Amino acid sequence: MSSVGRPGSRGQRTGRPYDHSSDGLILASTLDLLAGRGYEKVTLDEVSLLTGRAKSTLYRRWATKEELVLAAVRSVGRPPEVDLLPDLGSLREDLLAVIDSPWLGSPNRRLAIFAGLASATRSSERLAAVVRTEVTEPYVEVYRRLLHRATDRGEISANFVTSIPVLAEVIPAMSTHRLNTSHEPVHRDFFVSVIDNILLAALHPTGD
Amino acid sequence: MSSVGRPGSRGQRTGRPYDHSSDGLILASTLDLLAGRGYEKVTLDEVSLLTGRAKSTLYRRWATKEELVLAAVRSVGRPPEVDLLPDLGSLREDLLAVIDSPWLGSPNRRLAIFAGLASATRSSERLAAVVRTEVTEPYVEVYRRLLHRATDRGEISANFVTSIPVLAEVIPAMSTHRLNTSHEPVHRDFFVSVIDNILLAALHPTGD
Repeated sequence: MSSVGRPGSRGQRTGRPYDHSSDGLILASTLDLLAGRGYEKVTLDEVSLLTGRAKSTLYRRWATKEELVLAAVRSVGRPPEVDLLPDLGSLREDLLAVIDSPWLGSPNRRLAIFAGLASATRSSERLAAVVRTEVTEPYVEVYRRLLHRATDRGEISANFVTSIPVLAEVIPAMSTHRLNTSHEPVHRDFFVSVIDNILLAALHPTGD
Repeated sequence: MSSVGRPGSRGQRTGRPYDHSSDGLILASTLDLLAGRGYEKVTLDEVSLLTGRAKSTLYRRWATKEELVLAAVRSVGRPPEVDLLPDLGSLREDLLAVIDSPWLGSPNRRLAIFAGLASATRSSERLAAVVRTEVTEPYVEVYRRLLHRATDRGEISANFVTSIPVLAEVIPAMSTHRLNTSHEPVHRDFFVSVIDNILLAALHPTGD
């Protein structure tokens, strides 16, 4: 929640302090709209309707739709798995735990938000950069660490250590590819197929 | 070369027939600029300088940079491997033949053009759609057919047939992911790593 309630932002230029207490609601509603309709269909009018806040209040804090969505993306932070790596005893269980994470409310809401963000990254280079550094790259890091840990505990042969950097990119790359092709949220089945038919097939961990 | 020399295009609205003989040069120069500098840096001024054609001539035929780049992408057609699948006796050789294809002049020029196109798809939804249907999807189809043929000739176990749809997306997905992350052309080494450490590792064909 890095940008919520931050003091000294542009809302204060009119003299009257900007009331930050609605920021969380507004940013969460922005994500809901993004999840439901995609970036093109998000409007400040809709956010105003959904939150009961005046459009002028929204504009005072976020000058454009791009600014509002940027703030919404920054507000959610990075995937929590970056700080707390799943540890369920097998690589497959750990990978599925990332897919089934309750981050952003539920897997379904999160995957719908990701589909909305994919549409946003096609419209705004700034949004694309933030999604890359706040979402995609942290996920690559999570997968990289899960693969290394599976090697450390002997589940995967040490021969595969050199493959880990490229394998860690597979789930995010396939997910983005699918979003850009279909423009629909990616379903859990697709991730399971990528995990089983690509990652685990390439690594054939012991115990499979 | 579907859009080159097509009769009846907007150039004729001034009454004097538009001379299409320079189209090939102009579109090839557009691709060179795209390869060298990325979409943001392509300008009609530069294309005019590079080809010795008046800017007014360019504008008469392509009203915007987006139109010009769209025409350049359409002019190159689809990957030739779609019509003539490489057949070098092993899946690995066939996959490498697609990477080492002379299409678009040379592998280096082609990979630089793809990097330029990736920057274009981030700026234009129309360009993104054309790159998807003319480049990305045909490549997925080429890989899908190569994988099926390797199964047909017994190089790959029939158990992997259900994995083929998702595996066929791996090279295009990883390539796009890399382009979006680094904004540099993808090198041959990366493709070789994807082929060896992901595809062939997952399929472990006979003869490896």
